[in-house]
Amino acid sequence: MRVLLGSGGIGTKERTARFKGLLTEHFEGCSRILFIPLASANHQDRVIKMRDLLGMDESNLVLIDQSHAEDQIQDVDGIYMGGGNSFLLIQELHRLGIVKAIRESVKNGMPYVGVSAGSNVACPTMMTTNDMPIVLPETFDSLGIVPFQINPHYYPGKITFTHQGDQHPHYGESRAQRISEYHMLHDTPVLGMWEGSYVHWDGEQGKLIGTGVAFYPDKESLDLRDGAVFDKGLNLRQSSA
Amino acid sequence: MRVLLGSGGIGTKERTARFKGLLTEHFEGCSRILFIPLASANHQDRVIKMRDLLGMDESNLVLIDQSHAEDQIQDVDGIYMGGGNSFLLIQELHRLGIVKAIRESVKNGMPYVGVSAGSNVACPTMMTTNDMPIVLPETFDSLGIVPFQINPHYYPGKITFTHQGDQHPHYGESRAQRISEYHMLHDTPVLGMWEGSYVHWDGEQGKLIGTGVAFYPDKESLDLRDGAVFDKGLNLRQSSA
Repeated sequence: MRVLLGSGGIGTKERTARFKGLLTEHFEGCSRILFIPLASANHQDRVIKMRDLLGMDESNLVLIDQSHAEDQIQDVDGIYMGGGNSFLLIQELHRLGIVKAIRESVKNGMPYVGVSAGSNVACPTMMTTNDMPIVLPETFDSLGIVPFQINPHYYPGKITFTHQGDQHPHYGESRAQRISEYHMLHDTPVLGMWEGSYVHWDGEQGKLIGTGVAFYPDKESLDLRDGAVFDKGLNLRQSSA
Repeated sequence: MRVLLGSGGIGTKERTARFKGLLTEHFEGCSRILFIPLASANHQDRVIKMRDLLGMDESNLVLIDQSHAEDQIQDVDGIYMGGGNSFLLIQELHRLGIVKAIRESVKNGMPYVGVSAGSNVACPTMMTTNDMPIVLPETFDSLGIVPFQINPHYYPGKITFTHQGDQHPHYGESRAQRISEYHMLHDTPVLGMWEGSYVHWDGEQGKLIGTGVAFYPDKESLDLRDGAVFDKGLNLRQSSA
């Protein structure tokens, strides 16, 4: 398997350059990539921006056509799942009936890139999203092309916001607290990915590019450094310890 | 109607004192208040802490008993809906079949206090929650005892987090951006409530205690100051303009 999942949050020049480099490398040898921006509105805007970034045209980066999406999946050699709202995205993927086709293609080796919501739906469920539930999907079950959950846009600890020049503390739950709520009911480990970070997954093991935290249902969380290699349970491989 | 909804985030002495004062005032004349902590685990811990804070005992602040919750609603003269996870809370309220009973009682004048998730479920739907979808409820439809949506723990703009002494910017979506995603699909106005803030709703008009922002589907958002009085569309009443 060739799966690359990004946390999102690439709002600097350096991060955008890294994103472009990783995408280009990941899709090497692909002549037709299916672009799926169903997490957002303005699909045309999104695909045009991405074609600009990657130096591709409409024959290389093909916008999903909802009237024959399943055929398109058979006709391309790569999939890019864009960010936006995960609830909307998973609802649309199920409505179009393409969850199984994507899952099978990726399990058979088709390169997949997901960013933010596109990483959430690569997981067994999209339950570790940060998004607002603006639609009620029939199920939270997702592609399951990686065996763990991802919390994209992860940050450690508490946050502050700035208003009229003053910094204010925010008392609401941290991401770690929300993930521990998830683990009250579910056993799947969760990878909290700092913004600008990526995970490569090959079907057997993952490699982190950037910074992350592994959360387990039954033990202390573990900070993961750049280059960390882990198994499907997010346990570090000896070589990267 | 006598509805008091809090944003949560009362992690200072001053805020806790205000919370206690407002609750005591709101429940004045109530001899039996039903405490519903279904948004969280550890119901016993929660009720004990709240009894301590309010100086009440088990006859004044009655913990919900899932075997006869509907009867309890008929037997009390106030309802307190606690915070935690809104997905879990709305699932449990529907599973117990008490949504209608609570709605009717409150519409008939029974004082209601909700905080955080307890404010989310007072709205027509719980779609403007910040929580993680750790369970899939059968519906997002909620109590609808106020006619607008609330985003509790609201903060303006972007946030920063601190790690090993350094502040880092977070690039993920702001609350205002998430609310605008909600408004791509829905028309109900949304009240973003700063932490430590409250809304009184009497069935006709609301009054803000603290700081908030009104978001509309079709016009610019409006900053609301302490004491702002508004109608069911979150439009300011002339007297408070």
